[in-house]
Amino acid sequence: MERIPILKMGRLLLVTIQVDMHDRLAMTLQDDLMARIVKENAKGVLIDISALDIVDSFIGRMISNTAGMAKILDAQTVLVGMQPAVAMTLVELGLTLPGVSTALDVERGIKLLQASLE
Amino acid sequence: MERIPILKMGRLLLVTIQVDMHDRLAMTLQDDLMARIVKENAKGVLIDISALDIVDSFIGRMISNTAGMAKILDAQTVLVGMQPAVAMTLVELGLTLPGVSTALDVERGIKLLQASLE
Repeated sequence: MERIPILKMGRLLLVTIQVDMHDRLAMTLQDDLMARIVKENAKGVLIDISALDIVDSFIGRMISNTAGMAKILDAQTVLVGMQPAVAMTLVELGLTLPGVSTALDVERGIKLLQASLE
Repeated sequence: MERIPILKMGRLLLVTIQVDMHDRLAMTLQDDLMARIVKENAKGVLIDISALDIVDSFIGRMISNTAGMAKILDAQTVLVGMQPAVAMTLVELGLTLPGVSTALDVERGIKLLQASLE
């Protein structure tokens, strides 16, 4: 079955979303991610969406929910690599991604998480 | 157009392959990767294939060629996340990936590259 890989880097987890998310894939990702946060005792989650040209309300909600779940498990979520057009669309859709921090790229996202962990 | 994102982490670049590679996608990835190595002055490339259940001779050769090109640009390539079945298939196919280092996961791959950079 198709799965989105979750990469561990120290106490952070990195997810790169490259494919269109359908319902089941999104649910699997959430399940996998929560299981990994607990298993690896992760303190931060980076979600890279630089490959996505379009983020619709489904993915927007999915990311927002994932961040909420991660927060309950004591892990902070940073969304990285958002394309300018995606940011414009999200605001036009009224999706402001509450509870999700953002950073321009993975490198800045890692710095942001490490700063908040210290 | 479909593209595989290349993430920069310090002097390393990380590529996560999640989709089936066809010719054009593989060529685009190689082009992008070489351009990024030069642009970012990267010293190492991590290619994560943990999402791949199957690696055929085409992908095997592509990875091997990419590592060869990166080496000429003074960047070392580490292939990470290979599934046991993939390793078995590669050897059965006679693909031994010359010039490519491997590590079990991204974390170990980063350590390997950092050790060789010091």
